Amino acid sequence: MRRVKLILEYDGTNFSGFQVQARGERTVQGVLEDALRKIPGAKPRVVAAGRTDAGVHALGMPVHYDTEDSVPVDKVRLALNSLLPPDLRVLTAEEMPPEWHARHSARWRHYWYRVLNRSQPTALERNRVWWVPQPFDFPAIAAAAKLLEGKHDFGSFANREKRSTVRELYRVLVEASAGELHLHFIGNGFVRGQVRAMVGTLVEVGLKKRNPADIERLLENPNRAKGGITAPPQGLYFVEAGYREWERSN
Amino acid sequence: MRRVKLILEYDGTNFSGFQVQARGERTVQGVLEDALRKIPGAKPRVVAAGRTDAGVHALGMPVHYDTEDSVPVDKVRLALNSLLPPDLRVLTAEEMPPEWHARHSARWRHYWYRVLNRSQPTALERNRVWWVPQPFDFPAIAAAAKLLEGKHDFGSFANREKRSTVRELYRVLVEASAGELHLHFIGNGFVRGQVRAMVGTLVEVGLKKRNPADIERLLENPNRAKGGITAPPQGLYFVEAGYREWERSN
Repeated sequence: MRRVKLILEYDGTNFSGFQVQARGERTVQGVLEDALRKIPGAKPRVVAAGRTDAGVHALGMPVHYDTEDSVPVDKVRLALNSLLPPDLRVLTAEEMPPEWHARHSARWRHYWYRVLNRSQPTALERNRVWWVPQPFDFPAIAAAAKLLEGKHDFGSFANREKRSTVRELYRVLVEASAGELHLHFIGNGFVRGQVRAMVGTLVEVGLKKRNPADIERLLENPNRAKGGITAPPQGLYFVEAGYREWERSN
Repeated sequence: MRRVKLILEYDGTNFSGFQVQARGERTVQGVLEDALRKIPGAKPRVVAAGRTDAGVHALGMPVHYDTEDSVPVDKVRLALNSLLPPDLRVLTAEEMPPEWHARHSARWRHYWYRVLNRSQPTALERNRVWWVPQPFDFPAIAAAAKLLEGKHDFGSFANREKRSTVRELYRVLVEASAGELHLHFIGNGFVRGQVRAMVGTLVEVGLKKRNPADIERLLENPNRAKGGITAPPQGLYFVEAGYREWERSN
């Protein structure tokens, strides 16, 4: 038995999120597992570093599956890409030790959010950005983003989470780029809905509906009802996850 | 009677090009003219600075139409965007003197072509770039591109053109950007199919299937059969057209 790590890129527009759902909708996991069933020896069960909602994209989502075949992994990559639809691609395939786990072994995860901040709408990027036409107060967004960094209870940004909502957010980067606001979030893990709720809250700060200091109160008294709106899914990208070096070379 | 200039952005993926066709397929012109028919006073006939093929995009395509109404142009913009499908947006609307003409008054046109040059395919950009996985010889492409600049007979890059194929290409810019080759073409006008044939030929140079000096022979002896392949439409963007200042302020 071998464990195979794949890095996936997908356009989330026409997927009902990553995870297989009872209703049988089109999901990334479901489409990938259907393709793996056609490869002799491959176990169709897929585990991912993170789960994305409907409409959310991935530039480099690590997943794993187990297989009894001995086909060179680069041939697996080509075979899967010929079986998968064009909105889901396998970028790399790599053999890993059996104790390596796409979710449990991940040390950090990196999400990216794109806000188009111009008065004019967009046709080409309509499924790739959140369009906010009103001008932003960029320094206020940067100040608020800084306050999110660190180990906190992110309950003010968590959707219906019964378990612990404590996570560590290592870095939040705020960049202005060609009429866009780019927000990067790197942390050890994220509660369901957290990134989109943080983005919605930061955009409210940028539109002067909140003060940057609100962030401190939201982190001290976790309460989703006090947090900001949930940013729409199409501006969100799972960029990549990081793993310990020894786990790669083991 | 007033003449109104619109700047359009569109995602060419689901359009059969710009121009209305006898077969009644979905075109940018057809969709826009259908929307204008719903605005009282507006004449539905639209004239564009350039015509794009099926799958080709526009970041800023100038068009004009005439109207007998006196509605402020910014209200026209909002009304049209509420009538148009999301893959076609009106970025700006402006009143122009009646002698201004979107096609005839244009002094230059700017096209941009994106080639994704990495071994891995792409899901997110599949309708936005031409994927060429083999590594390029960038200096060879830059040298060949320079030879295309100037006033030439572009018959080696023209599709079924009975009229003159002489045009002036002011600038060809070659940039490497985050795993992509970007080609910018600025000229007084372009023969049908010219940009995609020039891109296909430059990519053949980059893959060492041709020498840069081939370009000189193609320009001296116009013959489409000797030119390179036609690059696919999805990497091509009409960026903008330029007009004389006096025509704007007239």
